[in-house]
Amino acid sequence: MATIKDILVEMKDMSELMVDLSYSAVLFNSKDAAEEVITLENKINSLNYEIKKQSLLAARSVEDAERLTVLLEIAEAAESIANSAKDIADLVLKGFKPHPVFKMVMEESEETMVRVVVKKESQLVQKSLGELFLATRTGMRVISIRRDESWIYGPDRNTIIFEDDILISKGTVTGSGILQELADGEISLDELGLDDFPHDSN
Amino acid sequence: MATIKDILVEMKDMSELMVDLSYSAVLFNSKDAAEEVITLENKINSLNYEIKKQSLLAARSVEDAERLTVLLEIAEAAESIANSAKDIADLVLKGFKPHPVFKMVMEESEETMVRVVVKKESQLVQKSLGELFLATRTGMRVISIRRDESWIYGPDRNTIIFEDDILISKGTVTGSGILQELADGEISLDELGLDDFPHDSN
Repeated sequence: MATIKDILVEMKDMSELMVDLSYSAVLFNSKDAAEEVITLENKINSLNYEIKKQSLLAARSVEDAERLTVLLEIAEAAESIANSAKDIADLVLKGFKPHPVFKMVMEESEETMVRVVVKKESQLVQKSLGELFLATRTGMRVISIRRDESWIYGPDRNTIIFEDDILISKGTVTGSGILQELADGEISLDELGLDDFPHDSN
Repeated sequence: MATIKDILVEMKDMSELMVDLSYSAVLFNSKDAAEEVITLENKINSLNYEIKKQSLLAARSVEDAERLTVLLEIAEAAESIANSAKDIADLVLKGFKPHPVFKMVMEESEETMVRVVVKKESQLVQKSLGELFLATRTGMRVISIRRDESWIYGPDRNTIIFEDDILISKGTVTGSGILQELADGEISLDELGLDDFPHDSN
């Protein structure tokens, strides 16, 4: 069972990711990003339930209760942030008519967002982000990884990629295509310039 | 006058920063971070007013109006995110009684957040982040800069620091102290290990 502390830290990470994903969804007209917001919203709701339950269980005195109400207020704010992010994501999922400014944002932006599923055949499987040099090879940064029902926020060079991981990544349009092919196992790492994987800083 | 496009991009950056700052404020009990949230909330309200005004002015047909309502919905969601961030920040400014879990988060976290004002005497003045190697020298990343009434979100190595800039930075507790002294002009860059400033990747 997650502790209140773990839940608080996860709420922070999750709220930031949801806000990022929801704006990215609408600015880049990305259904992928919008769908991840919906998934996260469900998760934040269950975290909220958990934090409320644990706060109520932990209150033994008036002083306890005073300190614990702060947690409830944070949970409420987190829920409200999640709802706003969902409102933005819903615009995309409902097939909104994009205003021409969105096209301008997309064209001027050097960044896009992509979600790829790592297939069994992919050379990414069982390798750490550090040894993959993904940023160097593809121009893509992995901002989070979804693994079954859990999330890794801000993965680092020691994070290992597994089969079926869902990588949420940001980078160039060209890079997105390359990452997709890597995740599908359609191209090999050797085709992307670096011949070996020194364990240096990425 | 900022265009609708500029406003949208700034809203995204600002929402992300507010969420980050508000949680950091409460988890690290940082009044600095909380105060920045309040400043940003005022700014997002005026951006919202601007986007609504421009949307109304731009509507010439039913189709225009349909496309423009999306902007109003985004503005509304941004306002709601800002309000939630402000609710969290207010807990800190009102002097909440921190629950022991906050202390645990702080102690286990390798990261803290600090706001420093760059004084005239500081060696940071008129230098780019790239040539300063701040991350290497101090262990601190500058996540945003406030300059008078405007903000630089996610400054990069080409961003020049000016006198009176307010740097919002994340890093270790030790690093925070060093950055403060640098910004105050109490220590020089030479005292921090690197003797010159090669313009390489940081």
